[in-house]
Amino acid sequence: MRPSNRAPDELRPITLERGVARYAEGSCLVSFGNTKVLCTASLEEKGPPWLRGTGRGWVTAEYSMLPRATHERTRREVNSGKPSGRTQEIQRLIGRSLRAVVNLPAIGERQIVLDCDVIQADGGTRTASITGAWVALHECFAWMQNRSIISINPLREPVAAISCGIYQGQPVLDLDYAEDSAAETDANFVITGSGGIVEVQGTAEGKPFSEDEFLSLLRLAKEGVAQLVELQKKAVA
Amino acid sequence: MRPSNRAPDELRPITLERGVARYAEGSCLVSFGNTKVLCTASLEEKGPPWLRGTGRGWVTAEYSMLPRATHERTRREVNSGKPSGRTQEIQRLIGRSLRAVVNLPAIGERQIVLDCDVIQADGGTRTASITGAWVALHECFAWMQNRSIISINPLREPVAAISCGIYQGQPVLDLDYAEDSAAETDANFVITGSGGIVEVQGTAEGKPFSEDEFLSLLRLAKEGVAQLVELQKKAVA
Amino acid sequence: MRPSNRAPDELRPITLERGVARYAEGSCLVSFGNTKVLCTASLEEKGPPWLRGTGRGWVTAEYSMLPRATHERTRREVNSGKPSGRTQEIQRLIGRSLRAVVNLPAIGERQIVLDCDVIQADGGTRTASITGAWVALHECFAWMQNRSIISINPLREPVAAISCGIYQGQPVLDLDYAEDSAAETDANFVITGSGGIVEVQGTAEGKPFSEDEFLSLLRLAKEGVAQLVELQKKAVA
Amino acid sequence: MRPSNRAPDELRPITLERGVARYAEGSCLVSFGNTKVLCTASLEEKGPPWLRGTGRGWVTAEYSMLPRATHERTRREVNSGKPSGRTQEIQRLIGRSLRAVVNLPAIGERQIVLDCDVIQADGGTRTASITGAWVALHECFAWMQNRSIISINPLREPVAAISCGIYQGQPVLDLDYAEDSAAETDANFVITGSGGIVEVQGTAEGKPFSEDEFLSLLRLAKEGVAQLVELQKKAVA
Amino acid sequence: MRPSNRAPDELRPITLERGVARYAEGSCLVSFGNTKVLCTASLEEKGPPWLRGTGRGWVTAEYSMLPRATHERTRREVNSGKPSGRTQEIQRLIGRSLRAVVNLPAIGERQIVLDCDVIQADGGTRTASITGAWVALHECFAWMQNRSIISINPLREPVAAISCGIYQGQPVLDLDYAEDSAAETDANFVITGSGGIVEVQGTAEGKPFSEDEFLSLLRLAKEGVAQLVELQKKAVA
Amino acid sequence: MRPSNRAPDELRPITLERGVARYAEGSCLVSFGNTKVLCTASLEEKGPPWLRGTGRGWVTAEYSMLPRATHERTRREVNSGKPSGRTQEIQRLIGRSLRAVVNLPAIGERQIVLDCDVIQADGGTRTASITGAWVALHECFAWMQNRSIISINPLREPVAAISCGIYQGQPVLDLDYAEDSAAETDANFVITGSGGIVEVQGTAEGKPFSEDEFLSLLRLAKEGVAQLVELQKKAVA
Repeated sequence: MRPSNRAPDELRPITLERGVARYAEGSCLVSFGNTKVLCTASLEEKGPPWLRGTGRGWVTAEYSMLPRATHERTRREVNSGKPSGRTQEIQRLIGRSLRAVVNLPAIGERQIVLDCDVIQADGGTRTASITGAWVALHECFAWMQNRSIISINPLREPVAAISCGIYQGQPVLDLDYAEDSAAETDANFVITGSGGIVEVQGTAEGKPFSEDEFLSLLRLAKEGVAQLVELQKKAVA
Repeated sequence: MRPSNRAPDELRPITLERGVARYAEGSCLVSFGNTKVLCTASLEEKGPPWLRGTGRGWVTAEYSMLPRATHERTRREVNSGKPSGRTQEIQRLIGRSLRAVVNLPAIGERQIVLDCDVIQADGGTRTASITGAWVALHECFAWMQNRSIISINPLREPVAAISCGIYQGQPVLDLDYAEDSAAETDANFVITGSGGIVEVQGTAEGKPFSEDEFLSLLRLAKEGVAQLVELQKKAVA
Repeated sequence: MRPSNRAPDELRPITLERGVARYAEGSCLVSFGNTKVLCTASLEEKGPPWLRGTGRGWVTAEYSMLPRATHERTRREVNSGKPSGRTQEIQRLIGRSLRAVVNLPAIGERQIVLDCDVIQADGGTRTASITGAWVALHECFAWMQNRSIISINPLREPVAAISCGIYQGQPVLDLDYAEDSAAETDANFVITGSGGIVEVQGTAEGKPFSEDEFLSLLRLAKEGVAQLVELQKKAVA
Repeated sequence: MRPSNRAPDELRPITLERGVARYAEGSCLVSFGNTKVLCTASLEEKGPPWLRGTGRGWVTAEYSMLPRATHERTRREVNSGKPSGRTQEIQRLIGRSLRAVVNLPAIGERQIVLDCDVIQADGGTRTASITGAWVALHECFAWMQNRSIISINPLREPVAAISCGIYQGQPVLDLDYAEDSAAETDANFVITGSGGIVEVQGTAEGKPFSEDEFLSLLRLAKEGVAQLVELQKKAVA
Repeated sequence: MRPSNRAPDELRPITLERGVARYAEGSCLVSFGNTKVLCTASLEEKGPPWLRGTGRGWVTAEYSMLPRATHERTRREVNSGKPSGRTQEIQRLIGRSLRAVVNLPAIGERQIVLDCDVIQADGGTRTASITGAWVALHECFAWMQNRSIISINPLREPVAAISCGIYQGQPVLDLDYAEDSAAETDANFVITGSGGIVEVQGTAEGKPFSEDEFLSLLRLAKEGVAQLVELQKKAVA
Repeated sequence: MRPSNRAPDELRPITLERGVARYAEGSCLVSFGNTKVLCTASLEEKGPPWLRGTGRGWVTAEYSMLPRATHERTRREVNSGKPSGRTQEIQRLIGRSLRAVVNLPAIGERQIVLDCDVIQADGGTRTASITGAWVALHECFAWMQNRSIISINPLREPVAAISCGIYQGQPVLDLDYAEDSAAETDANFVITGSGGIVEVQGTAEGKPFSEDEFLSLLRLAKEGVAQLVELQKKAVA
């Protein structure tokens, strides 16, 4: 029995609200249950120096949590001189995941920065970030097409992400914080609209897991992502 | 004529929404027009070391802007090792302003951290932060009273803040970004519910100002704060 | 009764000694009683990058205290990676105050750096810094005129600063450390030679203050600055 | 055809040389072909503060590359104030992987620090580090048993790691640098002596991969780890 | 011919002015010609943690230059997070040199911090610092004896320092900046009142030097230090 | 009697192994007894910006210790934002010492970086680094000559370094850790193949030393360096 009474393959209520940030080229407030992330996409005409002369663009991501997104207040990272290892790991994952479905040369020598700021955290913030960032990025590209900055849409297809885990011996979809902190195995999957796998990360928190257990998580994730992709398509329609 | 067509002594639409952060002891989403700040109050049983043995508590504040709160994306401060001078100046101002109306010994040896995170910035973020933080702090103290952590309410009275300025030769109340960036003189006032002045900061952006000009700003501020205090009282009722 | 036995409107002994730093283009050792600040003005032919192409110059300031300027030794800021919030607040105030009386296009695309290093601190270090920096800046501009680097003097008029406060219920001028640490209200005023107000900062340390109290401080400050401006004029004559 | 002419399921020459660091409680110089990592295990009687009172120990890891381990010299991280995101990601992976096979209460309230310093880098440094660190940790525990610091061996079983990837359309085992930089998909596997999976990380560098492709990599990894575990057992015999 | 027209074995005019810092337990403004250093000695009842339980005290030093002590303005080190290598090298030298003549157990478990802040720099700032710091330290110990904090004077004997160099083929004493920047060999000597050598640092700036050349520098230094020690004794009399 | 039973003028067993780093242009693993340092020389076509237009090259050095090179594990410097004072002092010494024998214009506008990473530390790591770095640099220049990047060998002559000290009243050569930590006086000498002195650093750890004592150390050093230079010549033959 899951703490939230959900079925093993049941997502939390998902919402994807587009256009929430007045000044950003693209934005999306994504909720996976009580997890809420504000994703914005910012067009920067001047990308990083190593982009110059390559004829293609770049998509990068930054991730942060508001100090009181969590049950206990978390210290701001501003005083430590660099994002924590966890933060850097997450922002690199978000960037890689979105770039996997973007036609970079179609952007031209520009950079899109995806900012994922967690307003409230109840597990799954990185997967919610990827899912919402795709919507913000889509809105940003539409904005650029409307202004004839680009001619074709650089997005090849949707991409979304979900966590799965083995909780009390049972594979379950979309872990909330209560499950996440007690799961024996915890895995994140980033999967495209056409079912291709972009990233797989599985970690045994307690005892090692078997190939069969891992495959049952992968199957749950594929079903979950298929639902997320439907919601993404509605959000940008 | 103001860019927003407001009368010289007219505030922007103000909202103070309490209880928006599920996990915080107190919270308030404050809007001054398009400026939106999420204020949370976090109770920390263990305050800073210098508090020990003093028999009184402390209220401190931290302030930050989401990178895309602004028209142009702002770089995160996380990579610079310390908040910028502007950020530190603002967070010290917020802390000082709220402490001015708190009976610190009534809190006991605890600390309340007020986090003011700017979701959207259209001028006046520091004054909106002070005004919203008071509501979050009030909710936090109520939470503590409900759990018998404190017996009396440590808040002596409301405190709110507003900016004024001389824009195209005319004193005006509650500058938005368009006015703020063009004003000849810019002043912030922090004033209590009973009309006492807690903080005054006036700066000539262009040519120096006269005593009379300064007094006309102070009078606008007093009227504006009186309206803000009425809204604070409704928000916590 | 003031600890120093001064009358409420009496300044401490003020000295402004020009030309004390052999290698600087301009310099002034300023004393407000036991507060001593060494101010130097350094001409940098190459200003900050954002100045290029603007056709105007810039004046900026840096502020620091020697570790044993104070009664108790203060730790050097060098190990903390950035000046403290207080230091940054002060150096931005000094820069803003001096720029208010400088004709920036008359400097050309150059930068003047004003270094204010507190040798001994007995209250009022930021106001002494502003007052002394004006003398150093004047000497620097004279040096530049002598070498035909600039043709007209970019200084429009003098600017000086003084602190006032309410000490034991009475408004007093030019707080020393003993008064400063016990004052109920503390305010700094930056005022030009012609009486224009450049900056006003008033803070209630204990209970909030009234409009009348604030006006009595402003009047004291105007008288004090008038005396400082006379001394500045003598120092540069 | 692999650049090294190896068969798809062929490891590079592997060596595990124990006892190479005179002063460390445990050490191992591990080579996967031209990749060489010096692993040391250091016993610290005083672990991190949060360990106190828990009755159990901790195993942590640090990872670094000598500047000229690589084809082009890499800048030292010492000037940047914190290890890079990549470094932190790797050292957290090493620590997690080793802790998965350690009985932490059997260590007592002590910490073992595993230092993995890459002397020469030709791909697979993180998997070589995990494999060598297990040998160093084994030697450290033997040292502690010899001195009666601990009574039972806290190591439950071996753990080793290997990378696999899809190179020119074919799944291959143990990527060297030439393959790693050209692979379409890149995955790291951490697997125990009894075949349990501790960590799985798969990333599509170019186009997304399918479930079948991923499974073929997992099967290669299992075979590779089985060979590594045999070598580990010989090294500590 | 030396740029200053001094004889090869002639010191610059030396002054040692005691008691210049009102709040410090000991202080000395030392001048070697145009080089001026303000040295203060601060008693800290609470030394570094590793001192506790040792029954002895510690003397440490910090060194810094005002930004416009030099011909060209030098950037403050505050923004770089740590003193430069040169600064650290100098402050460790000053500390070591003074500790060589202090009876540390006679101080008790306290720390004296020697701050050497260069007001004006014309070569030889580190040797001037050591020479002046001894006077400040002497004054500090006298202050402690007057208050019966210590019973015997912990200073065993004077210590002073001087630079020598080979300038245009000739060994000369007490290099100023013009000589220092052109010398072929540059050496600093720290020598006690009784002629014992505490520290020797010789560096070939151009071609290597011979044993004979080095000995001629050492002899000049001994004569120079003997004169400095006489001036120190007068200063503290 | 020395702890190692060596004669007072006896070096530890010295080895200089060339070509140990596969990817570096030059490398040398140097051992002075149990002290082992891996030295690499890296050619950088693009030197520091201040080199541009000077027509000459530069040689610089970086130094670090592996955390478990020492008897007790040493914390990595990566978290402190800058190398320690000791590290910076050593790397500046290594760079200066090697530049003393290099004809910088013969390199062209290029930079050679010498990395000296201490694998195991038993005293004398800086002198071993200088001695080994010369061999690595020699190999790097040969590599450049083979590729016709330079036409003449920029090395004028060998340079090597050795420590000496007064241990239990007796001058001894090549201190190991046991002697170094107990020596009354400790000195490092950098001397060229033709006997010229490049650098002399002598420090009294306990009581000051005399001129005669210092001269006896210098003579030991000259003999020791002569032996090291013979070994260097063999290593590069």
